[in-house]
Amino acid sequence: MSISDRFAELAHLRDALGAEEADPTRIVMERILSSTEAMIGNRPTILVGTNNYLGLTFDPAVLEAASAALHEQGSGTTGSRMANGSFACHAALERAFADFYGVPSAMVFSTGYQTNLGLLMGILRPGDKVVLDSHSHACIYDGCRISGADFLAFRHNDPEDLRKRLRRLGDEAKGALVIAEGLYSMLGDTAPLAELCAIAKEYGAWFMVDEAHSFGVYGERGLGLCEEAGILDQVDFITGTFSKSLASLGGFCVSRHPELQLLRYGSRPYIFTASPSPASIGAAAAALEAVRTRPELKANLWANATRLHDGLSAAGYELAAPVSPVIAVRVPSREEGARIWNALMEHGVYVNLVLPPAAPEGAALLRCSLSAAHSFDQIDAIIAAFKTVAPEAATRAAQSTAAQ
Amino acid sequence: MSISDRFAELAHLRDALGAEEADPTRIVMERILSSTEAMIGNRPTILVGTNNYLGLTFDPAVLEAASAALHEQGSGTTGSRMANGSFACHAALERAFADFYGVPSAMVFSTGYQTNLGLLMGILRPGDKVVLDSHSHACIYDGCRISGADFLAFRHNDPEDLRKRLRRLGDEAKGALVIAEGLYSMLGDTAPLAELCAIAKEYGAWFMVDEAHSFGVYGERGLGLCEEAGILDQVDFITGTFSKSLASLGGFCVSRHPELQLLRYGSRPYIFTASPSPASIGAAAAALEAVRTRPELKANLWANATRLHDGLSAAGYELAAPVSPVIAVRVPSREEGARIWNALMEHGVYVNLVLPPAAPEGAALLRCSLSAAHSFDQIDAIIAAFKTVAPEAATRAAQSTAAQ
Repeated sequence: MSISDRFAELAHLRDALGAEEADPTRIVMERILSSTEAMIGNRPTILVGTNNYLGLTFDPAVLEAASAALHEQGSGTTGSRMANGSFACHAALERAFADFYGVPSAMVFSTGYQTNLGLLMGILRPGDKVVLDSHSHACIYDGCRISGADFLAFRHNDPEDLRKRLRRLGDEAKGALVIAEGLYSMLGDTAPLAELCAIAKEYGAWFMVDEAHSFGVYGERGLGLCEEAGILDQVDFITGTFSKSLASLGGFCVSRHPELQLLRYGSRPYIFTASPSPASIGAAAAALEAVRTRPELKANLWANATRLHDGLSAAGYELAAPVSPVIAVRVPSREEGARIWNALMEHGVYVNLVLPPAAPEGAALLRCSLSAAHSFDQIDAIIAAFKTVAPEAATRAAQSTAAQ
Repeated sequence: MSISDRFAELAHLRDALGAEEADPTRIVMERILSSTEAMIGNRPTILVGTNNYLGLTFDPAVLEAASAALHEQGSGTTGSRMANGSFACHAALERAFADFYGVPSAMVFSTGYQTNLGLLMGILRPGDKVVLDSHSHACIYDGCRISGADFLAFRHNDPEDLRKRLRRLGDEAKGALVIAEGLYSMLGDTAPLAELCAIAKEYGAWFMVDEAHSFGVYGERGLGLCEEAGILDQVDFITGTFSKSLASLGGFCVSRHPELQLLRYGSRPYIFTASPSPASIGAAAAALEAVRTRPELKANLWANATRLHDGLSAAGYELAAPVSPVIAVRVPSREEGARIWNALMEHGVYVNLVLPPAAPEGAALLRCSLSAAHSFDQIDAIIAAFKTVAPEAATRAAQSTAAQ
């Protein structure tokens, strides 16, 4: 095996996407029109395949905070947090997260990817035991892998399978780390966090939840699914990202353990990287304030999600999960997935095409993700486009109704 | 071993810093005054411990480009390059890097850390052979580790040791990857790239150079030490960062191999992360243009570096390397390092304190890094502060002169 072989392997991956047909790397947002629209190939397109859940990327308060930070603090920190890269803004945002969660510790990282890598490399050592949901994000797997810990997956969202894995670990379950996410971004399904947490605690394990897709979206105060599940006082580590609801780049980790702060001395993806740029911190801080003070954003998001879920269901599409801000439409084959994906774009609607193996459970997915900033008119246009490009789905729906 | 043990281990690392005395995590830039000054603990402080080599973080063109990108494209992309996060600005910056280097391929990553992780995870597989300089940055080691490749280090900047390692690999040297940096950021010494490259090629190995600290700083056109060494047509992969000369956050990889582009299909730290924010791309693009068109920046930087190197040498300090934009002052013990570091700050001068094991070769280092934006008055003030806080160094210098 050499780098040439690796190039050949990568070329094979590319070719498997069927040339241009299903190649997502060809999609360029030529011009951004708003948080829900862009020009793609000279066509104004409704974006319903982003992670812009609260629609804050063009929010005046967010832009103003980012702009002020840029002009007052410069375009970059040119240093790590350990050296010259700890500005007052970084410390203030960490305090804001800790206060919002009511915990002693919060840390900010330069990307969401480095957040999970940083936490896991910080707390795990070779030989440690990790039991993680099988649908966990790539950066969770990567963090486990690079830490040298022994990790194994439990069946997605299956508390009994988690129990079985922990039981098999015997004495080693005590002190193991159990990892789940809040909202899973591919299927749009949510984790049974209360049950998973109870089982982890029963075995004396630590419990970590990645709320990348659920922060700002779930929970009375928008803290995420741990809040909704009532386990904020039990979960050991919560991670999240700035590049979804918080309309920026970076990530955070909060913990009820003051010792989280110690990661500043030993987490390589935290120490050996430049700190987030002032504009990114400014944007995230303003977006966090919006989560805290503008509950109507979450309400709009859910109204839009419900409307799209209802509309696509009524049109006969098979949806992967109950309503959530991520609505994944199942398509029987990758060819059909690619065809509908392209046809939707021709009708001015951008969704994410997810093919196996990235699509869990084999079938292709057309992943729709909602924004608080979508209008009902946009939602209706999306539904209409889905009906136009796959009329047979509507036919199936009609048959199914007639058959009842 | 469990997470509690890990916390104890991290607390030990913290305590080894001697409470507040030598703990860099307590340094917060309370207010940024310019690219070379900040308020630290209510004291205006000259920053000579950043990576702001070209001093562009407050450059009007850079701020304007970042601000325009922010307002026109939003505060974040809320998506990966593989999904909705490829904006025209990302593609344009990749073309600009490819054009500047005259190569077919360039890719942009979300941080410098993820650049090396992304390249190495993209091109290496378990069992592949890597021979890297022993002083390589943490993210190069991390990238090798997570890829599963077999890696071993050659003695820092020692071509003959590289040759020995490659020879020992036998047939496996062909197709191995040799990694060096341009300018090493701790000691401020540069790699003998022409010799390292010739040896790598002699054995049929690939050659990668990280120009994080040398891009924009070395080479006729500012391309880095590969340009200066005359090996641009031979080196296989060059990586760099936006968070140093380019005054932003992110990183780039360029290659003479068009196949670099294939990493878009298989590099996890590239695929599974949000793309750089528009403001970061805007800033980096404007800074790249400055590297290309304003050679006076590099000239100023070198004039400042030479002045500081001369001044500290004359004051009797032992410097780790010939003049470069990084000037590392050797201090015999960690206690003495911490004392001088704190005393310098009391005199309004911030440098980086580097203690073992981070300090290569055992002794503590006071790492000074220059900026094109420093004035000669600032350089002179830095030299004066060094003389004041450690008069015995000047005494040593006088004795040494008298003894000649």
